Amino acid sequence: MLEKTMRMNYLYDFYQMLLTDKQRSYMSLYYLDDYSLGEIADEYEVSRQAVYDNIKRTEAMLEEYEAKLMLLKKFQERQVLINQLKKRADENMLTIIKAIEELE
Amino acid sequence: MLEKTMRMNYLYDFYQMLLTDKQRSYMSLYYLDDYSLGEIADEYEVSRQAVYDNIKRTEAMLEEYEAKLMLLKKFQERQVLINQLKKRADENMLTIIKAIEELE
Repeated sequence: MLEKTMRMNYLYDFYQMLLTDKQRSYMSLYYLDDYSLGEIADEYEVSRQAVYDNIKRTEAMLEEYEAKLMLLKKFQERQVLINQLKKRADENMLTIIKAIEELE
Repeated sequence: MLEKTMRMNYLYDFYQMLLTDKQRSYMSLYYLDDYSLGEIADEYEVSRQAVYDNIKRTEAMLEEYEAKLMLLKKFQERQVLINQLKKRADENMLTIIKAIEELE
């Protein structure tokens, strides 16, 4: 998946509740269901340009929300910490088990 | 601290970036610095009623954001899980130490 598509998928996931129904429909068809702009335009009987403008505006809104609330950034930071914790727990358990085996 | 004040402090903490400067000023003076409505009105040379209306609207906005994004709810759920994890880590470490002591 392209980096921008992946980022938009994440931002959409975090902030979709702040969008209008129409914005959600277009974004969901375009980013999740991989519809083309033309297919969405046909589906909603509007121009391809109207769909394009709406999606561009929505993308900008999602980036503005992220600039303010940083939910994706905080999520990614938390994932790093969780992975460090997992690794440390694994390593420590291994250290203990090795020390036990030395007693055998 | 009253339950509502505590909740508003949390919601303000999570969503303040989505408020206007004026909303942030009033909320911050009222909830964080414990100013009265009258003191805020004097400070900004507006009526007490105007301050009251603004704060009530802001409180409603914060609750709407929480209904949509649930940042406070998710934060609280995460705190419960973290505390369970801490407790379990403590208990397991204690179990291991006791088992080691039985070897002595």
